[in-house]
Amino acid sequence: MPAIDSFPEVDTPSVMVDKDVLLTNIEKMSSFARNHGVHLRPHVKAHKTVEIAKIQREMGANGLCVAKLDEAEAMAAVGFSDILVAYELVGQQKLERLLYLTEKVSITVLVDSIPAAKALSQAATSRSKVIPCLIEVDSGLGRTGVPPGKPALELALSLLKYPGLKLKGLLTHAGHAYAARNRSELELIGRGEAEALLSTAALLRQAGIGSAVLSVGSTPTVRISGAVTGINEIRPGNYVFNDATQVALGVARREDCALSVLTTVISRPTPDRIVIDAGGKTLALDRGAHGISQLPGYGLVKNHQGFVIERLSEEHGIVSLPPESPVTVGDRLEVIPNHACPVVNLTDTLYVHENHRVVNQWRVTARGGVR
Amino acid sequence: MPAIDSFPEVDTPSVMVDKDVLLTNIEKMSSFARNHGVHLRPHVKAHKTVEIAKIQREMGANGLCVAKLDEAEAMAAVGFSDILVAYELVGQQKLERLLYLTEKVSITVLVDSIPAAKALSQAATSRSKVIPCLIEVDSGLGRTGVPPGKPALELALSLLKYPGLKLKGLLTHAGHAYAARNRSELELIGRGEAEALLSTAALLRQAGIGSAVLSVGSTPTVRISGAVTGINEIRPGNYVFNDATQVALGVARREDCALSVLTTVISRPTPDRIVIDAGGKTLALDRGAHGISQLPGYGLVKNHQGFVIERLSEEHGIVSLPPESPVTVGDRLEVIPNHACPVVNLTDTLYVHENHRVVNQWRVTARGGVR
Repeated sequence: MPAIDSFPEVDTPSVMVDKDVLLTNIEKMSSFARNHGVHLRPHVKAHKTVEIAKIQREMGANGLCVAKLDEAEAMAAVGFSDILVAYELVGQQKLERLLYLTEKVSITVLVDSIPAAKALSQAATSRSKVIPCLIEVDSGLGRTGVPPGKPALELALSLLKYPGLKLKGLLTHAGHAYAARNRSELELIGRGEAEALLSTAALLRQAGIGSAVLSVGSTPTVRISGAVTGINEIRPGNYVFNDATQVALGVARREDCALSVLTTVISRPTPDRIVIDAGGKTLALDRGAHGISQLPGYGLVKNHQGFVIERLSEEHGIVSLPPESPVTVGDRLEVIPNHACPVVNLTDTLYVHENHRVVNQWRVTARGGVR
Repeated sequence: MPAIDSFPEVDTPSVMVDKDVLLTNIEKMSSFARNHGVHLRPHVKAHKTVEIAKIQREMGANGLCVAKLDEAEAMAAVGFSDILVAYELVGQQKLERLLYLTEKVSITVLVDSIPAAKALSQAATSRSKVIPCLIEVDSGLGRTGVPPGKPALELALSLLKYPGLKLKGLLTHAGHAYAARNRSELELIGRGEAEALLSTAALLRQAGIGSAVLSVGSTPTVRISGAVTGINEIRPGNYVFNDATQVALGVARREDCALSVLTTVISRPTPDRIVIDAGGKTLALDRGAHGISQLPGYGLVKNHQGFVIERLSEEHGIVSLPPESPVTVGDRLEVIPNHACPVVNLTDTLYVHENHRVVNQWRVTARGGVR
């Protein structure tokens, strides 16, 4: 009993994108941004794909956000002119590439330390450039960023001394939302994300420093923090696809997941075990980066209750299933991955389908370089 | 205090290969194979790189092993003519690609089920081809493969009925060795790997079925199972690089690790935490695929005692360190990844160095397609 979406025209494993669901996801977020009067600056790291960035722009995105210069370069090459590198750029090669990019497009970068600011200032002044930057505030993730409040103010005051830098505002990413165990924890983290910026901006204002940009991120929190008065930019990335993590968090339903991995059953060694041709080199090994994971395995097998992807080797997925299930060698399964972003990073091609047929192949443009 | 191997000529994160260590690793395994009179058929999935496969051949490899047709196609394109696809090939596209490849090179495939054998037989006979195949025996990993002994014999007897297939022998992969907690467990698993094939071959012999090939694999077990009389082929892959997993298993020392990730410290938000520009999209998230992991974090930071890579987001590595450590923003660190194979699969380029200088860039040829 082959599923209706078994896509006989493509080999497996392949990464599939349901175009209708993708468009709906993009439109919903654009509509949220419009309704709340905030800039929508989608994070490209989720898809790394020119075609999707173009759709985001057509549907109202105000610029793009990237994690890497590779992504910025790929998007600048096709005409995107307002890019935020939501990352601390450190090292001579990166500064050279950044300055080269500023010849063509507007690039804003993050700062969270004096040494990085100093190097950025030196590079900018050596070319008579002024680089717009945001201070990264740590709203609880415990990764990069300065604590909100006084430490952020101190960094802001220091930045004013460095020529070639123009402080434009504050940014935070509440990635610890991915560890939220329920809706009220998520609400708390989302409100904390906004509050970290608003309280810091108030302190800066007292010191005479403006914060034109107050930018928050993350697909799970953005509808909470982005709805807080005063916040004026949101940077969700994953929302274009959604995935099993967003489903586990209650942020999306299974039917809101646009990306899946099409895979073939290659073996059924025992009645309660099948092996599929998608392993860690296709599905990635994410079980929740920033906290306790509630994820039942390495992805959700669509339309097959009780199937659990128990283990992944590089090219094998080991799946437990009810022994009475009629699945056999050669059948195809569709898997919603735990985390769509690294899955995209593992393939060159997204197979785009509409009405159960593949209608396009999109190249994952900004993938390949690790930098 | 920049390290001697900070490679100012390359941007970070980059995947580095120490050529001397690579050559030594390859020569040691070739020498083991020569001394024990076994065929060495290295597994390409570890490196996916034409240049490394060529070195393996020059140093005495007898053919190659691959996990995917993508890898087989890339290696066939540069003249490798004896390739084992150590994978059950299922699906019409795969069989078409396989038959196309057999026009140019000798390809052997795995079989572990009747449905797969039947489809393979039909495809082969439709083109008047005979496909050499090996029965995959499960020596304890619990992935693909039939149990040793009677079930394998039953499959062998069935295969004889299918035209277009030529049964050449038996294969197993004791990947569960990666869960071994000590040397004696590893010895036990290695001997079990050989025994699963030898006992099955004896049973087949009684039924008048020969097993010309008895093939074992895995870098941790191969010096145990490959030394057992009667085993005549070994398929290690990871040994070219080694990694933190092999170090944890006692199979390699840190100085035997040829592959590392060069990374830059981008932030030191607190005295006991730095953030590096290598995350899960560079280092991969492996903590041990087939069992309990003894790995202290997501990789070993070279020359820095007490540094632990605690968490990875997509592009950030969060590292705890002794608060008194003088490391600062802009410093470069070298990380031995937990698992070298998926790291190679995440980059297009390996930077090859000799005497602390980059001497070459090798393209990761067979990477990019998920198939």
